[in-house]
This record gives sequence, structure tokens and C-alpha cells, in this order.
Amino acid sequence: MSTLRFLKGHGTENDFVIVPDADGALDLSAAQVAALCDRRAGIGADGVLRVVRSAKDPAAAHMAAEAEWFMDYRNADGSIAEMCGNGTRVFARYLVAAGEAAPGTFKIATRGGIKTMQVPADGGDVTVDMGVAKLPGSDGIEVTLPDGTTRPAVNVNMGNPHAVVFVDDLDEAGNLFTAPPVAPAAAYPEGVNVEFVVDRAPGHVAMRVHERGSGETRSCGTGACAVMVATARRDGAALPATYTVDVPGGRLVITEHADGRIEMTGPARIVAEGEVDLGELTLRS
Amino acid sequence: MSTLRFLKGHGTENDFVIVPDADGALDLSAAQVAALCDRRAGIGADGVLRVVRSAKDPAAAHMAAEAEWFMDYRNADGSIAEMCGNGTRVFARYLVAAGEAAPGTFKIATRGGIKTMQVPADGGDVTVDMGVAKLPGSDGIEVTLPDGTTRPAVNVNMGNPHAVVFVDDLDEAGNLFTAPPVAPAAAYPEGVNVEFVVDRAPGHVAMRVHERGSGETRSCGTGACAVMVATARRDGAALPATYTVDVPGGRLVITEHADGRIEMTGPARIVAEGEVDLGELTLRS
Repeated sequence: MSTLRFLKGHGTENDFVIVPDADGALDLSAAQVAALCDRRAGIGADGVLRVVRSAKDPAAAHMAAEAEWFMDYRNADGSIAEMCGNGTRVFARYLVAAGEAAPGTFKIATRGGIKTMQVPADGGDVTVDMGVAKLPGSDGIEVTLPDGTTRPAVNVNMGNPHAVVFVDDLDEAGNLFTAPPVAPAAAYPEGVNVEFVVDRAPGHVAMRVHERGSGETRSCGTGACAVMVATARRDGAALPATYTVDVPGGRLVITEHADGRIEMTGPARIVAEGEVDLGELTLRS
Repeated sequence: MSTLRFLKGHGTENDFVIVPDADGALDLSAAQVAALCDRRAGIGADGVLRVVRSAKDPAAAHMAAEAEWFMDYRNADGSIAEMCGNGTRVFARYLVAAGEAAPGTFKIATRGGIKTMQVPADGGDVTVDMGVAKLPGSDGIEVTLPDGTTRPAVNVNMGNPHAVVFVDDLDEAGNLFTAPPVAPAAAYPEGVNVEFVVDRAPGHVAMRVHERGSGETRSCGTGACAVMVATARRDGAALPATYTVDVPGGRLVITEHADGRIEMTGPARIVAEGEVDLGELTLRS
């Protein structure tokens, strides 16, 4: 019987199968990743976080001097992704819980570059440096709501593209099984994540998100940062500015510093650990 | 840290968190069950199978002389359910894999009574005796398809109510997020599970199912039995009769014996095992 050690964790209910592989000995195929993430026939998750020493993985060896550990992130369909903000918090929490990193501030390697993490010793919320937002310009960009009316959208790029739409009630977004229509299509040639935002209090908003290719999710880290940036601009907030952003899966606190760097703070939980029997997984390749 | 040992398994992708509790020492609250079944903040499953000696549980002590083990089945929302056909296969597979029952034929206790199981030693498909179907009469019962047309339905009761509808193509059922309209409502005062069936070959059908309160599922054991019975009647099949019934999550083989007893045979897989940290679960009640 061939077994694989795993843990399951989540950050604001964006959930992951964590696969420790310090020496880079595993060769997880796309089909195996998809089978692990299968919510009924496997463990179930939004993605896999393989934990490997940077020096042991060709994709990260160039970062090994700065960051001992590499987050090899895979989407639930087995494809490779550059980054996942909620994933970095869970990844860093795992490193500290497993004794592989000391609590405090340390760096991790991702395909999207080096990320600086802050993990408190007490199990509290984890902070990740999400980098700088770009605002490519929003002139004429609109999202159509289910009632047929349109709303202007704010174009924010966090390494991936976002359209942020302010509404009076999150129910106005309707069901988000399918992508809300965004025009003009030329504004987002690679597709777009769409966030709907309402005010809860000064410095406090709530959002729902449709993620490209995934539908509505419980949380989107880059989406929450995009929402914070769009809201701070709308409010004319002076930097540094801090906003609380409620997502369906929990609460994030996001700060934009004077130099434009954005820090996202939120929960990161390890719920279970065990062994999966690779021979019992359902491979669908 | 308070941890709970668990396994995860499935039968035709109807999936379960298995909780061994031989001595009935656990008092799992509805909120804890729901948190375990939460697909993002917990482990994720359609339900929990607590494995307890019949003598150690007040709900099963009267069955202890016949069946050593009691399947304490809970729905994903934490509520108690009488029975789950796919669950019995996974439960019996677990007993054999854990060395708590010898391979071959043995009985288990459920809230729906004693069930006779056949578990081969080689890990192959598991058989459960599902009892006898009732056909309360189908006169005038109709299901409306998304295109507005109606189809006659066959009323089959397997301890729970079913409306079986023959179609030319399973896509005719549309999306099954919501319950297909069944009339007259008086035919099913407690609601109904609706199965759509197409022929694949002589003695071989495929189905989709909308389960009361759950929406479309990957498999429904009683639904597959109801489909077999309705198809055998349509075909004028002599008993014993055997049909292969494909569900979205796999393949079941169902035999109706001359005395009316229905046996369902299908896969039962244990995919993973581990420990869950109860303190990290998200309790919502």
C-alpha cells in the first residue's frame, strides 16, 4: 500500500491539502493532485500546497538563499498556479506548527516570487506581504447585474486582474455560478475576477467574489486586497490605510503602506492530518 | 489538543467521515458533525458513520444479539438519519479492513433495522440487502421537465419515497440544483427523491438523481434500487432479475430476488485516515 502523508487546512475557508515533501522526493502528477482535491472521491480541497525545500526544486532553487521553503501550489484541477494569498498563510502556519520555521517574520518562495510572512507564536492571525497594486485605469468598465442594470467597476491588478463593483446589497450580485458580464472585453483579455462590495462601517467592507474558472468562492486573497485598494481610493484615504474586509469564509484585515506595499492578515488553520492511500484514489486523466 | 481519529471513504462517490468509537465513548454533537462534514472548514463529507458496538448504544442495544456493530449515521447537517445504502457498504468495508469483522457475510445494525452485508476478502465490491420495494401506485403522477413537458413517474418506496422518470437523454433533466416539480403533491406528503433514467443496453440503465434536501448527488443507493425495480416492471422481467445501474459516481449492480428482496452491489473505498483537531473545527450552531 502506497500512502502519502497529508494535512488539511484553510484560510478564511479557502482550503488546501498540504503535502510535506522536504527533500522533493515526490513527483505528484496532475491527475494525482486532482484526485486528492476531489471532494467526494478524495480528500477535497481548492488546491494542494506541496512543502519542499527551495534548494530541492528546480522551480525555486534560485530563491534558496533567501527562502528555505518553496510553496509548490497546484490548483484543484492539477494545473500549476503562481500564487495564492490564502495559501501562503496556511503554508507558513504549517511550517511553524511543524517546527520547520521559527515564529516571527520569515520568507517563503512561491512561483510569484519571495513572500514575507509574519506568523505569531500563539496561533493567531498570519500576515503576508502581497506586494503593490496596479491601477491600469477603469474608464468605461462596467459590470451588468442580474437585474439588467450596470455598475461602474474599478480595475485593480494584484498580479491577477480584478473588477471591483460597489453595490448597496451583496444580494444584488445574484447567484455567482456563472461569471458576471464585464465590458468592454478588451479591458481584461485574460478574463477577470469580479468582486462585489458593500460598506459595513467606516474602514470596514464586506464582499463576494466570482473567481475566474472557479465560480463563487468563500475567499479570494488578491480579491480582498483589490477591494481594499478600490475602497481606499474611493474614500480618499491617506496612506498607510487599514480596512477590514469580510469575505464569506471569514475576516481579513488589509493595510496599504505609504510605499504601496499591501499586507493581508487573516486566520490560517490546520484542521487534520493523516495518510492517504494513493491506490484508492480515483484518477480521471 | 483534543483530537479525534477518523477515516474518509466513499461508495460511488457518496462520501463519509468514519469515526471509530467501539465503546460508545464519544458524544458527537450535531454542530461537531456538521463541522466535520464542512467541505472547506472541516474534512468534508455527505455524512458521518460512527462505528460503535450495538451493545454500547441505547439506539441499537436491542439488536446486539444479531449484529455486533451499529452504524450511527448522521447527515451532513448533524441530523440523525435512519439508513444510507452506500454508507452500509463503506461501514462494512471499514469493519473488515480494521479487523473488526471477518470477510464474508455478516449483519450490521442501523436505525432502519438489521442489514446483511457481504464483504469479499479481496477488497472487491460489497453487497447489502436493501429489503423489499413497495409500489404504492403511480396513477396520474407526473414530473415536469425544464422544457415544460411532463413525463409519467413510477412511485417506488424503498423505506423512502421515489419518483422514477424514464427519459431519452439524461440532459433532459436540466440542472438539478432545485427539486423537479412532481404532481400531485398529495402523492408524496413527505417530499420525494426524483430519478431520471435512460437505457444503456438490455439490463443496463443510467440515472441522475435529485435527493430531497440535498440537490443532485453523485449516487443514491435507495434511488438506484427504485430505478431497478421500475425498470424491471417496465420490461416485464422475470425474478430473479439483475440490472446494472450507472450513477454519476460509479456503477451499481442490483438484483431483485424471487421473494422480493433487493441486493445492491457496489464499490466501497477507504481513501484516507488520520486525526482531526477538534479545537480547530468551525462550529456554527
